[in-house]
Amino acid sequence: MTRGGSIVRDTVRKLQQVLRTQQVDVAIFGRPENVAYVTGIAPEGPEWAGVAMAGGPMTAVLFAETADSGELILANTEEWIVGQRELHVLRKLYPAFSNDHAYDPQKQYIDALTKEVNRLLSRSVRIGIDDGVPHMVVESLRRRGVDGLVNITEVAARCRRIKTPSEIALIRECARINDIGQQACRSFAKPGITELELWHHVVQRMEDEVGARLTVSGELVSGPRTAKPNYPGGPTTRILQPADTVILDLSVRLSGYWTDTTNTLVLSASPSTSLITCFSAAKAAFEAVIKELGPGQTCADVEKVARQTLSGFGFLPQHYLGHQIGTTVNELPRLVSYDSSPIEPGMVFAIEPGAYEGEGGSFGARLEKNIVVTETGCEILSNFPWGLDPASK
Amino acid sequence: MTRGGSIVRDTVRKLQQVLRTQQVDVAIFGRPENVAYVTGIAPEGPEWAGVAMAGGPMTAVLFAETADSGELILANTEEWIVGQRELHVLRKLYPAFSNDHAYDPQKQYIDALTKEVNRLLSRSVRIGIDDGVPHMVVESLRRRGVDGLVNITEVAARCRRIKTPSEIALIRECARINDIGQQACRSFAKPGITELELWHHVVQRMEDEVGARLTVSGELVSGPRTAKPNYPGGPTTRILQPADTVILDLSVRLSGYWTDTTNTLVLSASPSTSLITCFSAAKAAFEAVIKELGPGQTCADVEKVARQTLSGFGFLPQHYLGHQIGTTVNELPRLVSYDSSPIEPGMVFAIEPGAYEGEGGSFGARLEKNIVVTETGCEILSNFPWGLDPASK
Repeated sequence: MTRGGSIVRDTVRKLQQVLRTQQVDVAIFGRPENVAYVTGIAPEGPEWAGVAMAGGPMTAVLFAETADSGELILANTEEWIVGQRELHVLRKLYPAFSNDHAYDPQKQYIDALTKEVNRLLSRSVRIGIDDGVPHMVVESLRRRGVDGLVNITEVAARCRRIKTPSEIALIRECARINDIGQQACRSFAKPGITELELWHHVVQRMEDEVGARLTVSGELVSGPRTAKPNYPGGPTTRILQPADTVILDLSVRLSGYWTDTTNTLVLSASPSTSLITCFSAAKAAFEAVIKELGPGQTCADVEKVARQTLSGFGFLPQHYLGHQIGTTVNELPRLVSYDSSPIEPGMVFAIEPGAYEGEGGSFGARLEKNIVVTETGCEILSNFPWGLDPASK
Repeated sequence: MTRGGSIVRDTVRKLQQVLRTQQVDVAIFGRPENVAYVTGIAPEGPEWAGVAMAGGPMTAVLFAETADSGELILANTEEWIVGQRELHVLRKLYPAFSNDHAYDPQKQYIDALTKEVNRLLSRSVRIGIDDGVPHMVVESLRRRGVDGLVNITEVAARCRRIKTPSEIALIRECARINDIGQQACRSFAKPGITELELWHHVVQRMEDEVGARLTVSGELVSGPRTAKPNYPGGPTTRILQPADTVILDLSVRLSGYWTDTTNTLVLSASPSTSLITCFSAAKAAFEAVIKELGPGQTCADVEKVARQTLSGFGFLPQHYLGHQIGTTVNELPRLVSYDSSPIEPGMVFAIEPGAYEGEGGSFGARLEKNIVVTETGCEILSNFPWGLDPASK
């Protein structure tokens, strides 16, 4: 999935400004979230995860000098990259695999990279790299006499914290797709089907809407497994039972940007008092946060609101209140008591309070929607109805 | 997904032997395929692909001295790792995220890593690293006076070339699951459904069999898009038409090991002569290769057999004949004319000859199954029937 060129230019321009303030002239990015940010290319699937196929690693090289001095992607010749939709960025591809004659992909990669960097090495240049740049790249630069590499991991992460309007538009569209997945879960959650079958309905509905495969992550658990906040491994072949609870934690990536939501459903027509207490506590915490959250606060301020609300129902927070999303599904700052980062317009958070019966219990509720911070407060991007809300049944 | 402990020990012991021949005492692996090889842990999904969540990068540290001196995984405290099934390897986890107090994940990671390495630094130790180890790790080791790091990327890749019996057993089981996906495609491929709907049947059948989500990659294309060998972007919402051809290229990972197969189906009851020619050429090439392939040959020898067979039908190879599979979906050696690597027992290949009408055409056939090289030849691991074979209809 790629973003359109104008949106790439949007984030590239912003990053160029930041790099100029650091006196960095050339930036090399290796971390997938930074490559996605600069290029709009978000590789699909673990088979691309740093695993060399035909070519070398995928990095993005960004020249910070002027907005027009050239934004460069350095990638390999794999068809999935060549076949990407047009990007308004200069792309340099290097030959790395052929059916008919041999290339050394690592050498091709380093040669292509240094050729571009050499264009600037005739004068004094500061090169920034992020933590994901392979060490062979760093070694190669050093062998060519490049010293004083600047670690720009933190600078890039800070730049990514405040989303641009075009990034927010992409996340908004992704939230719409995520809504469709959550609504499919409500529609198809019935006693007799397995967690896996339910999961397939969720994925299929979203992919049908988009007309393509999506990168989907998350968990779907039912029954007693929902009682505690840690439930790795779902969905399974467990068959949904009458009166079961079902929690769907659904993360979806569209055009390189993630959304991440959770809903708690109950298959029973008359939920128990305990169920309603957990749900009410999570919902009250969510609503209290949404009401308070806005510029001028810190992450810790926001977390405190949720903590106080949950404790009013007799619950302690079992996990964090939330985290930012963007080109990763989970990025800083997180909504935790020890993070004093300011809440600023353009931040996009997943807010996810939960209340759980705990060890020996049979129920828990986690509610998660995505919000964007505005000038005056926040706007909820997720529009699916909560599963236990009588009004939304 | 993880492998059982005995299987991890199998690959670990083999790698330890290789490292000893290189006088390497400690090996640090960062490439996902090597981490999976040493630990049995194969992270799911692109959201884990080098993206820092709670912790630092996942690396595996292997001590080469003796088989019992300690096999170590260094990872973070993310629940999906903690929740993995028991591994017969020593696991060192470091605290990296808490809801209540702050950690510096990078520092925790480096501290935990160097603590383990320091145990051996009191005497002369050679440390090997692969290309995927983050450069911050290398810098940190250098600051602690560690010099002469040995690049063991190639050594590890060579060790992984010949699969152990337990690895072959895992790939065999994965091939069985892949068969179920290919058979689902045959069963559900009907005019009127979309490529995406067909894809969902394929994935659902395989996941139902396993009882869990699988890492699945590949492509499903239909109609004129099959005429050329490059078809990125499928499956789409294209509706299958009567007489359509359908190509499913299906890659599945189970317990950290991949299989990769392709079948070509035709929805028409009476395929055209041109269709049958393409299919017959691909099938003849596949069968000629299977008949010849065995120890004593080189990759180039095997490729030549396919090339000659295809040319007998008037086709030129449009892509490579195949590649090894293992902890990556595509690893060396590949079956290309310029690779003189010997074919050895224990290698596992995806053999994938194809014949295509080409530009302006409306049909192509690609046939791909996985084989393991034996002492006397090869054994086909994939058991699904070819789509155009009259006998298998």
